[in-house]
Amino acid sequence: MYATTLKNLIEELQKLPGIGPKSAQRLAFYFLATSKKSVEDIVASIMEAKDKITYCSVCFNVTDVNPCNKCTDATRQDDSICVVAETKDLAAIERSGAFRGKYHVLGGLLSPLDGIEPETLRINELVTRLSKNNVKEVVLAISPTTEGEATIIYLTRLLKPLGLNMTRIAYGLPMGADMDYADPVTLFKSFEGRRIVSHD
Amino acid sequence: MYATTLKNLIEELQKLPGIGPKSAQRLAFYFLATSKKSVEDIVASIMEAKDKITYCSVCFNVTDVNPCNKCTDATRQDDSICVVAETKDLAAIERSGAFRGKYHVLGGLLSPLDGIEPETLRINELVTRLSKNNVKEVVLAISPTTEGEATIIYLTRLLKPLGLNMTRIAYGLPMGADMDYADPVTLFKSFEGRRIVSHD
Repeated sequence: MYATTLKNLIEELQKLPGIGPKSAQRLAFYFLATSKKSVEDIVASIMEAKDKITYCSVCFNVTDVNPCNKCTDATRQDDSICVVAETKDLAAIERSGAFRGKYHVLGGLLSPLDGIEPETLRINELVTRLSKNNVKEVVLAISPTTEGEATIIYLTRLLKPLGLNMTRIAYGLPMGADMDYADPVTLFKSFEGRRIVSHD
Repeated sequence: MYATTLKNLIEELQKLPGIGPKSAQRLAFYFLATSKKSVEDIVASIMEAKDKITYCSVCFNVTDVNPCNKCTDATRQDDSICVVAETKDLAAIERSGAFRGKYHVLGGLLSPLDGIEPETLRINELVTRLSKNNVKEVVLAISPTTEGEATIIYLTRLLKPLGLNMTRIAYGLPMGADMDYADPVTLFKSFEGRRIVSHD
């Protein structure tokens, strides 16, 4: 139906996550219609990222300098480590400004059915890191999914002997949410995590 | 928040149509996680399409051979020309198998507010083509939008003196649609275009 070159392009684009046949077609026509310069810019930034980006050897954050700028930042607390599944979770936490310590990126969550076992993740590296340094607090900032819960349970048991102050972030109603529309599990978590209102 | 190279990539990807910040982030992480070979394949197919693809000098279809394979296909009728806005409309019609003549791609629809005037589109080329050849029928296969209707009215007036058999495709309830959910304009079009039921 389309010229072979165009058909190839549409097929290649469909391999990308979240890109179906319609989006692939739209992207392909965009590439054809836009200036050669814009296309070269996009292609160059893909290849540059692919060439330069690596994992930080300390925290396994995605970085183009090693160790990453979070690990070398002297203004961040050394004694508090926040454990996240993926770099994008780290980025979300950074956007909130909620945490000023160091990070540890697991590279996923436990999911034995998908072949993700403790050895697949950077859990050994976490244990080594926590044993060696002067760490006082570990914050598990992990999504409350089945895999997330499994990972939290595994880590809690594994790290207990280290005698650290170990917490997990709170789950409950998101800001601006209507209680009427909240799902029962969230409401349950919300009650479970209730705190005494302070009278100042 | 992210390494500069990764931030650049996410920003470049956000320039693509239909790609917001979240999709751009997902695509960027996909490029980092996938094999170098896959990334190179995608990049190569983008650059190849950009280099090779051109517009057919007869019908203005997107093609990598000129004239395009629709124009040189001897099994297609020469005396019937289907006018479409974009190459993707041509592809949709080809998928349906509804038409076996030649095409003419306008390259858009009239929209004076967006600066798309008759001169911007391949309307002159259409008139020349229809005057020269042995064309008997023109089918306007154009979407029933404001711009589509404007283009149809303009073309109908312009082409009338040529004395061709000029039709526009039917608008009405799509196959499998529930009448209850159809919008009033579609239902109106559906009644306007009603046909006598044949008794064989």
